[in-house]
Amino acid sequence: MSDSTHVLTIGNAIVDVIAKVDEAFVRREKLVKGSMNLIDEERAEMLYGVMGPAIEVSGGSAGNTAAGVASFGGRAAYIGKVKADQLGGIYRHDMRSQGVAFDTPAATDGPATARSFILVTPDGERTMNTYLGACVNLNAADIDAETVKASDVTYMEGYLYDKPAAKEAFREAARISQGAGKLTSITLSDSFCVERHRDDFLSLIRSSINIVFANERELTSLYQTQNFSGALDAIRRDCPIGVVTRSAKGSVIVKGGDTIEVPAHPVKHVVDVTGAGDLYAAGFLFAYTAGKPLAHCARLGSLAAAEVISHVGARPEVNLLVHAKEQGLL
Amino acid sequence: MSDSTHVLTIGNAIVDVIAKVDEAFVRREKLVKGSMNLIDEERAEMLYGVMGPAIEVSGGSAGNTAAGVASFGGRAAYIGKVKADQLGGIYRHDMRSQGVAFDTPAATDGPATARSFILVTPDGERTMNTYLGACVNLNAADIDAETVKASDVTYMEGYLYDKPAAKEAFREAARISQGAGKLTSITLSDSFCVERHRDDFLSLIRSSINIVFANERELTSLYQTQNFSGALDAIRRDCPIGVVTRSAKGSVIVKGGDTIEVPAHPVKHVVDVTGAGDLYAAGFLFAYTAGKPLAHCARLGSLAAAEVISHVGARPEVNLLVHAKEQGLL
Repeated sequence: MSDSTHVLTIGNAIVDVIAKVDEAFVRREKLVKGSMNLIDEERAEMLYGVMGPAIEVSGGSAGNTAAGVASFGGRAAYIGKVKADQLGGIYRHDMRSQGVAFDTPAATDGPATARSFILVTPDGERTMNTYLGACVNLNAADIDAETVKASDVTYMEGYLYDKPAAKEAFREAARISQGAGKLTSITLSDSFCVERHRDDFLSLIRSSINIVFANERELTSLYQTQNFSGALDAIRRDCPIGVVTRSAKGSVIVKGGDTIEVPAHPVKHVVDVTGAGDLYAAGFLFAYTAGKPLAHCARLGSLAAAEVISHVGARPEVNLLVHAKEQGLL
Repeated sequence: MSDSTHVLTIGNAIVDVIAKVDEAFVRREKLVKGSMNLIDEERAEMLYGVMGPAIEVSGGSAGNTAAGVASFGGRAAYIGKVKADQLGGIYRHDMRSQGVAFDTPAATDGPATARSFILVTPDGERTMNTYLGACVNLNAADIDAETVKASDVTYMEGYLYDKPAAKEAFREAARISQGAGKLTSITLSDSFCVERHRDDFLSLIRSSINIVFANERELTSLYQTQNFSGALDAIRRDCPIGVVTRSAKGSVIVKGGDTIEVPAHPVKHVVDVTGAGDLYAAGFLFAYTAGKPLAHCARLGSLAAAEVISHVGARPEVNLLVHAKEQGLL
């Protein structure tokens, strides 16, 4: 890569299969609303068999973030594993056509490209059921050292910790990024993911992460407390910058002794909250790598999150650079 | 099939790949806005390479109509050819989960499941670029005679005439339907399609079609005239029932000496006109097979068309039966 990349994201490359369901469906399938559930192939087939007509859109938490950075006009790259199948081709197309560099080789055998059945209830909440498929093949050999070294920030999903090889890929990328004096960032992804990997996450954050992204529930889960301000103080001690999103209550950034609170960007009608955190991170990191003050980073994050929850699908439907300029934010 | 089917539809089974483009893209790619273009695999790859991120939704004109009939609570069946690949699996799922019987065997070799790149401009118009793929394998052997005989109406796309084997399948279905004393119906599909098959369409309509669906442009193309009322009189002579849609101007039904004009259902904001004609036919045929008067059939058609153009994608996003009841139409 000749020009340096602003933001490299690494995560599970997943095609979202989005269907509307009613509350009764969620109860009948014993789902916890708002959660991300890992499912096996058998459960995936069962669930697909009982859910209604769907639309398919490229997704994946870190993939959404890369797409968001590119939509702001930032230079974005992505590392993730698809299979060389139809959905894998769609995923690569959607990344590259958005302007994201995505060169991780596709798996030629093994499980199919990952799918997440995203069930959206009338309140806009989403319950995710993810079959990781080809993502299980992501490993340390997929981490291109030159790409990591050329990136101002390497941002990774906590979800990667769910598979040993992907976890190793994550740690390898963090080592290279830190060794090159670049910024390393993580999103805690999901409160159940935090439950599964709490000790690993804490030790990683304390040793080699510059910016942590979390929502309120993930942060309080990390520190096993109901006390939000206590959890904020804990992340303040553990990491140079903590960025915490609180849905309609906006976001809070802690950096050393500083605490910056920014209100949420107004949304007329919440249609589908999928991707809110991913796009917040996109706006924040785009602004941060452009040298903007933290409050401004938060405002761009909020703007991008507001756009993505106003429609179905977890990637921006507008050019975020134009959108931010129209709003007087760039 | 134990219960009789209200509406059987037969057509090209196509997954829509929908992307927003600007007017400059349409000019650069030398596309005629609002048209459907058949493209080969090479052109498909080229076009996909230059178009932006997309969403994938099951489509196909007759497939959309079957989905619409089922959404109204009608018994719908579909005949069409996918390949046994990922997009083919998605297509079958979306049909069956909507309640449409779809048992045509998938092709196990040959071209992949069909795709149509649908490019939506800011005015809501759509330009379709269709790679027919596995649809070329649809043939007369796929026409299950028992299904046709058990259907009140067999409704077919004019598009089927673009491939010789599919055209033969169409004619076989028409023979069976007419032989069983059931209704046979066609949509003219597209004005360029009419240009390609004008004489065949006229001879078919005069010999074995009970209900013709067309939009204004298709009808005037069929009779090679600029005079709409002249074309209306011509279809009045050629076919028992002619149903003509005129976008915002509503629709006109001619039956013998009767002419019934019904205004369009109001739409707040046109997002994507794809599927307008398909869903109009769904509402019309659902009501017609339920014994409703023609004006009522037109009103249900207009209602379904208005719903589908108010969002991206060519299949209803709401339960049309509930929607029609809320509007006092059922």
